[in-house]
Amino acid sequence: MSMDAVSVIRTKRDGGELSAAQIDWVIDAYTRGEVADYQMAALNMAILLNGMERHEIARWTAAMIASGERMDFSSLSRPTADKHSTGGVGDKITLPLAPLVAACGAAVPQLSGRGLGHTGGTLDKLESIPGWRALLSNEEMLSVLDGVGAVICAAGDGLAPADKKLYALRDVTGTVESIPLIASSIMSKKIAEGTGSLVLDVKAGSGAFMKTVEDARELARTMVGLGTDHGVKTVALLTDMSTPLGLTAGNALEVRESVEVLAGGGPADVVELTLALAREMLDAAGLTDADPAKALADGSAMDAWRRMISAQGGDPDAPLPTSREQHVVTAAASGVVARLDAYDVGVAAWRLGAGRARKEDPVQAAAGVELHAKPGDRVTEGQPLLTLHTDTPERFEYALKALENACDIAAQGAEFNRTPVVLERIA
Amino acid sequence: MSMDAVSVIRTKRDGGELSAAQIDWVIDAYTRGEVADYQMAALNMAILLNGMERHEIARWTAAMIASGERMDFSSLSRPTADKHSTGGVGDKITLPLAPLVAACGAAVPQLSGRGLGHTGGTLDKLESIPGWRALLSNEEMLSVLDGVGAVICAAGDGLAPADKKLYALRDVTGTVESIPLIASSIMSKKIAEGTGSLVLDVKAGSGAFMKTVEDARELARTMVGLGTDHGVKTVALLTDMSTPLGLTAGNALEVRESVEVLAGGGPADVVELTLALAREMLDAAGLTDADPAKALADGSAMDAWRRMISAQGGDPDAPLPTSREQHVVTAAASGVVARLDAYDVGVAAWRLGAGRARKEDPVQAAAGVELHAKPGDRVTEGQPLLTLHTDTPERFEYALKALENACDIAAQGAEFNRTPVVLERIA
Repeated sequence: MSMDAVSVIRTKRDGGELSAAQIDWVIDAYTRGEVADYQMAALNMAILLNGMERHEIARWTAAMIASGERMDFSSLSRPTADKHSTGGVGDKITLPLAPLVAACGAAVPQLSGRGLGHTGGTLDKLESIPGWRALLSNEEMLSVLDGVGAVICAAGDGLAPADKKLYALRDVTGTVESIPLIASSIMSKKIAEGTGSLVLDVKAGSGAFMKTVEDARELARTMVGLGTDHGVKTVALLTDMSTPLGLTAGNALEVRESVEVLAGGGPADVVELTLALAREMLDAAGLTDADPAKALADGSAMDAWRRMISAQGGDPDAPLPTSREQHVVTAAASGVVARLDAYDVGVAAWRLGAGRARKEDPVQAAAGVELHAKPGDRVTEGQPLLTLHTDTPERFEYALKALENACDIAAQGAEFNRTPVVLERIA
Repeated sequence: MSMDAVSVIRTKRDGGELSAAQIDWVIDAYTRGEVADYQMAALNMAILLNGMERHEIARWTAAMIASGERMDFSSLSRPTADKHSTGGVGDKITLPLAPLVAACGAAVPQLSGRGLGHTGGTLDKLESIPGWRALLSNEEMLSVLDGVGAVICAAGDGLAPADKKLYALRDVTGTVESIPLIASSIMSKKIAEGTGSLVLDVKAGSGAFMKTVEDARELARTMVGLGTDHGVKTVALLTDMSTPLGLTAGNALEVRESVEVLAGGGPADVVELTLALAREMLDAAGLTDADPAKALADGSAMDAWRRMISAQGGDPDAPLPTSREQHVVTAAASGVVARLDAYDVGVAAWRLGAGRARKEDPVQAAAGVELHAKPGDRVTEGQPLLTLHTDTPERFEYALKALENACDIAAQGAEFNRTPVVLERIA
């Protein structure tokens, strides 16, 4: 069968289903450079607007996996368990979670990414620890994983190269927000990575890619189906991202908060979500007797953290960078915080220097936003609500613009229903 | 207001209207190369699937006109009248029409294109005349137009360069078939060209871009609105393209048929459409007393043709190229030809060498299809129905494949309604 890019684009443009042969051809030809970026951009937009059926998404995912190498963790003595979050504001959960689950007996290979836009990146956060290295060879990675039980590092170039190319293209062509494209992108990397089980943290709300619970649920179901089809035990939790997680958004700020959680303290929502995801990962890995709350309380999770950071060249005892300039935002009225918008806080942290506008930009380790109150908390007019951190104070104005409508304060005594952290479980 | 390509793409992707500032920016930035091909491809697909409002199309057209130079024919003593066809199979009408209208007193500046795909190009047809040159400088063009009253030549690079770039991109990204994009492409060129009046031949049927009368009508209305908005007196005829025009599809074959029309003969449908379009052009140019039928009969149109061809280096008396090989397709049954599909005949002519697959391909002057019967004609089993012409006989098989279902023959006496050539007039 002869193939050409225009006929594949037309099929999807006109609302048809792509055949398995069309999908295999277009992904392979795009990876090889035979299909041009402009052709794939047109196809992506047609997919975003006209959708894909489940079997098309499955084939698309399989074709992206087949574009590169697959890793194999079967030589490890422990069962592997992996977690992926669709990204949010203040989402530092991977940092305490990976060592916690390792302390309970699983092997946790966390191949992570950098932040782009208003959501932070796990690697950017850990790089605020002096000496810590994100880039490991496959051998180094396996050695840390085998020795410590957990490793957080950058994904190698060999995993799903089609996805790498496609993701960069989607980012600059307005085609990120497509459930089929998001699901296949995440799952192709995770399946190629070779984990035995996978827990997905699918976020819904202003600070997430999926703004509504309905969209988040569809994304979660799609990904659980893809994982299951490929023999990976996959579970998803739908979690709230209408407000930032914890009390910090920023690189070093989030590392500090993660260490507090590992020390047995930290904000309640971060602890709750860390434990919920840890239990799912341990269940999926078959370690049903493990007790993650105990591992937080008895210091064994903290031990795993220290060993994991050290194994990648970091000094767990070194002081974290602090910002050169701070600006305090105070409460405009007395009452109860009714809303503190995750997206606005994320954009503010980004503009303060915690994130990057383009892939090649550097990030500031100490920049970000500290929260002094969360929805449901009582505040008094004039009390500190947020502290903004940056090394470049000319950014304050731009960050404050993002925060103009970030916070609603309701009258004292107004009814307030706290949104639960975990909204649903999909398996 | 700060602009970036992704926010423009997202606006249209999400079903919104593009602002005037967004349109002006994106067309200018694309022409300058600041907006990349892949970004414009994604935007084109979003426009194709989500549409544009009339005022968006008007602004898009104006921005494309503003991307280049505009011509000015106000120094001519005659009123200018131009025609544009949306393209069909056997559509040689420009060839007899331009000298005919010139013979009636108007100035006809026909900036034409080459064929791509199954529709032929006016310049390719004329280039089968020994010596004839398509490429004129602006000064040469004005001089031929002033002296003869008609000129058919290639459009210069300076007219609507944004459209030139965009059209090439649409061709390879499956985004040709969008009414807003087709209308703005045609009208930006025609308005930049500086004609005082314009008659559009908007074709509907299998051999046209618009397969249905409804789509053709919408395209016609959009273009008439755009022309009128820019002060160009614009009229459209919706015409039938379910069957080829005349009895030939191919370059030299169509020149020969055009000369027959200018000599007072030729197929009835070609004569009918030529006269209908001539009357519209003359009316629009204010020459309401002109009599094009007389100009065909008395030889004055033929005189204008001979002068026009000579002025561009062609020899109107030189014999036209003939094909090295012919293959005759005979009628499979006796009866009345009920359908002879324009698209299939166009594809066959293309495959025989009359058209090109890629812009840089050459065409064969003598290749094409001759029709010996048209819908409504009686045929006897075994009589010649089509003659295929080519210089490269290995193409016959490929052309015959395209013709497998091109012709339906109904039983003798079956009812047959001839489709009129002109279906509607839109002004």
